[in-house]
Amino acid sequence: MQTSLENTSEYQIIEFTWPKGYQSDGLHAGLRKVKNDMGWIYSTTPAKAAGTYTTNQFQAAPTTLTKNTINKNHTLQAIIMNSAVANSCTGKLGEKNALTTQKLVAEKLNINPDLVGVASTGLIGDQLPMDIITKGIEKLQLTDNTEVTNAVLTTDKHAKTISIQIDIDGKPVTISGFCKGSGMIHPMMATMLGFVTTDANIEDGLLQEILSSEVDSTFNQITVDGDTSTNDMVVTMANGQAENTELTKDSPDYPSFVSAFHEVLSTLAQDIAEDGEGSTKLVEVNVQNAATHDDGQKVAKAIVGSNLVKSAIFGEDANWGRIVAAIGQTDATVDIEHTSIWLNDLPLVVDSQAADFDEKEMKQALSNNKITILVDLNSGTSTGQAWGCDLTYNYVRINATYKS
Amino acid sequence: MQTSLENTSEYQIIEFTWPKGYQSDGLHAGLRKVKNDMGWIYSTTPAKAAGTYTTNQFQAAPTTLTKNTINKNHTLQAIIMNSAVANSCTGKLGEKNALTTQKLVAEKLNINPDLVGVASTGLIGDQLPMDIITKGIEKLQLTDNTEVTNAVLTTDKHAKTISIQIDIDGKPVTISGFCKGSGMIHPMMATMLGFVTTDANIEDGLLQEILSSEVDSTFNQITVDGDTSTNDMVVTMANGQAENTELTKDSPDYPSFVSAFHEVLSTLAQDIAEDGEGSTKLVEVNVQNAATHDDGQKVAKAIVGSNLVKSAIFGEDANWGRIVAAIGQTDATVDIEHTSIWLNDLPLVVDSQAADFDEKEMKQALSNNKITILVDLNSGTSTGQAWGCDLTYNYVRINATYKS
Repeated sequence: MQTSLENTSEYQIIEFTWPKGYQSDGLHAGLRKVKNDMGWIYSTTPAKAAGTYTTNQFQAAPTTLTKNTINKNHTLQAIIMNSAVANSCTGKLGEKNALTTQKLVAEKLNINPDLVGVASTGLIGDQLPMDIITKGIEKLQLTDNTEVTNAVLTTDKHAKTISIQIDIDGKPVTISGFCKGSGMIHPMMATMLGFVTTDANIEDGLLQEILSSEVDSTFNQITVDGDTSTNDMVVTMANGQAENTELTKDSPDYPSFVSAFHEVLSTLAQDIAEDGEGSTKLVEVNVQNAATHDDGQKVAKAIVGSNLVKSAIFGEDANWGRIVAAIGQTDATVDIEHTSIWLNDLPLVVDSQAADFDEKEMKQALSNNKITILVDLNSGTSTGQAWGCDLTYNYVRINATYKS
Repeated sequence: MQTSLENTSEYQIIEFTWPKGYQSDGLHAGLRKVKNDMGWIYSTTPAKAAGTYTTNQFQAAPTTLTKNTINKNHTLQAIIMNSAVANSCTGKLGEKNALTTQKLVAEKLNINPDLVGVASTGLIGDQLPMDIITKGIEKLQLTDNTEVTNAVLTTDKHAKTISIQIDIDGKPVTISGFCKGSGMIHPMMATMLGFVTTDANIEDGLLQEILSSEVDSTFNQITVDGDTSTNDMVVTMANGQAENTELTKDSPDYPSFVSAFHEVLSTLAQDIAEDGEGSTKLVEVNVQNAATHDDGQKVAKAIVGSNLVKSAIFGEDANWGRIVAAIGQTDATVDIEHTSIWLNDLPLVVDSQAADFDEKEMKQALSNNKITILVDLNSGTSTGQAWGCDLTYNYVRINATYKS
């Protein structure tokens, strides 16, 4: 589903806050040296829940557990999360540890374990040190702070958060999202965890439909390095405490809610791309006149995913041949004689050949922190969009030394 | 087709030389600052010819011309080649320039233009400077030197060559290959040019069959950066001057010939991976107990293609979770509870969990110039193999500054 975000005054971005009825906490339990490494979110009443999960065949224990938990009743009341240890490739003991974590949180909050999601991110292969996890859960409180948004970070430079407020039949409804993700980021669920809470009152089943659709055009359209992880998930909770009339597809406010939801996911996805490991530039690719939306998405992803394009952008080099080569690698319908490319609005390629651009203007454009590449495939009327970042010395440094 | 190369004494690798009846030359025409940039190979008699070409939709003018030329009569007598300028994305003028180049060579050699292949590599988008090309062709001679093997290089550190001799019904037959390729290298024809000459006498049509099959398991199984180019091709010529009885599938020597041909392509492919832009280590991945050969190839390629795995290998870091994540990203059949991995013969993962390896031994293994990763998918009896290299600061440096 594509929604037009331009010219909408139906929602407003506000300072990050929890929607009505949500509490949280984050702290340093000892999984990482200094930084926050555990946290949770809690809704004072059970919330409708939906999720999307990694497509990697090696799905981590907490990811599988959360998926199964949500699928039982489509309801959650809390999500516990930790960084540093991914609890992935950890066998039966890993499954047991995820279950124990779920149970400990349920006991502390005095709710059913089936209402608790579990999310982990960090190094693959190590077992969760359950003594630290247990002590961490003991220390977690129900507060208004937003420390949990830091507790899920790994190589991220900063927390990624957004709150949007919309009016639904006279009631203010808030949607608040946060996520982590920096490396191992690729379409089809990046190495990322995303959490979206809202106080909207929404019809059964609709939350999953909106989430799945909007993840496709946001989180699934970013790439940092072409790798996908074993732990990825986006989970959303809607506790209904805004007390709006239940949202259905026929509600007059339904399109605004979807727009606002899209904006939350899209902003978080772009934040991840911008904070890609080692990155110095956010790269946005827009494709127009594609034969199909799928073609447009494919071409946009191929360009942001090309190591050569990414290196050239880091070098502030208008090496457009690499963009053309990336387009041609896809099986999208391409008018190979009439493909055109612009970089930050300057023509780079016209009809599949070099445009007569001003070198100085182009150099200036390439020095921006955000590079927008527009591709016209001259093959139809559909569009596509994707985000990524440049490939830098720092990406190599970060990933050559991640474990040791 | 897979051929066993071990324990064969049916062929021997000899010092690089041209097979009977081939002459060549290479020189500095002025496309590059100092290094050789033009060259040719010539057979004193028309040779059976076969080729495989880039799958990129933006196919360069010389690549299309050579494909069409070979497809006419499956015969070539000469191939002209240049580096520095790819003659790709150059429109009608580019096509005309490729044709003119073909015609000039044909005139100089006094042969039909339909017997002349044209190959270019270098920067996409610039037109060939035809004055330099014309003067270069005027200067080229028919000699025994092997300068042409340097003339096709771009960011390659060294020429990649191999000659193999086999005995076919008492006659010595030589197969000599050379290639270029360093960046923009990926399965489905890497950014590479490969040329294989032989004096074998071989049945019509069989050369293409062998080439296509052997390219699949060699050049199509290497990756440097996941990008494919507009100019790639592998062309082979067989002039029959060894005077062996015509090789057919029923010849007793046919398997030896295919083995030797495979060895030429496999050696060149590994040379390309080892000389990958900025690389410090050759990475070989072998997959065993895959459900199908296709699954094995897919998994092998996914591992050598992962930026995270490549960065970890550069950092000499046994971060095996990234290998597991790369395997899980494919749609190959995987026994997710019983997948095992070895690195240079040391167990890294046993039954999808950390092996109890000696850190010191592993550190020693990781310091090697060649890293061999063996994966057991526990899902069948098929195998797969691929080659790549590590991802380094130098890769970024080379590609951030390639054009300017």
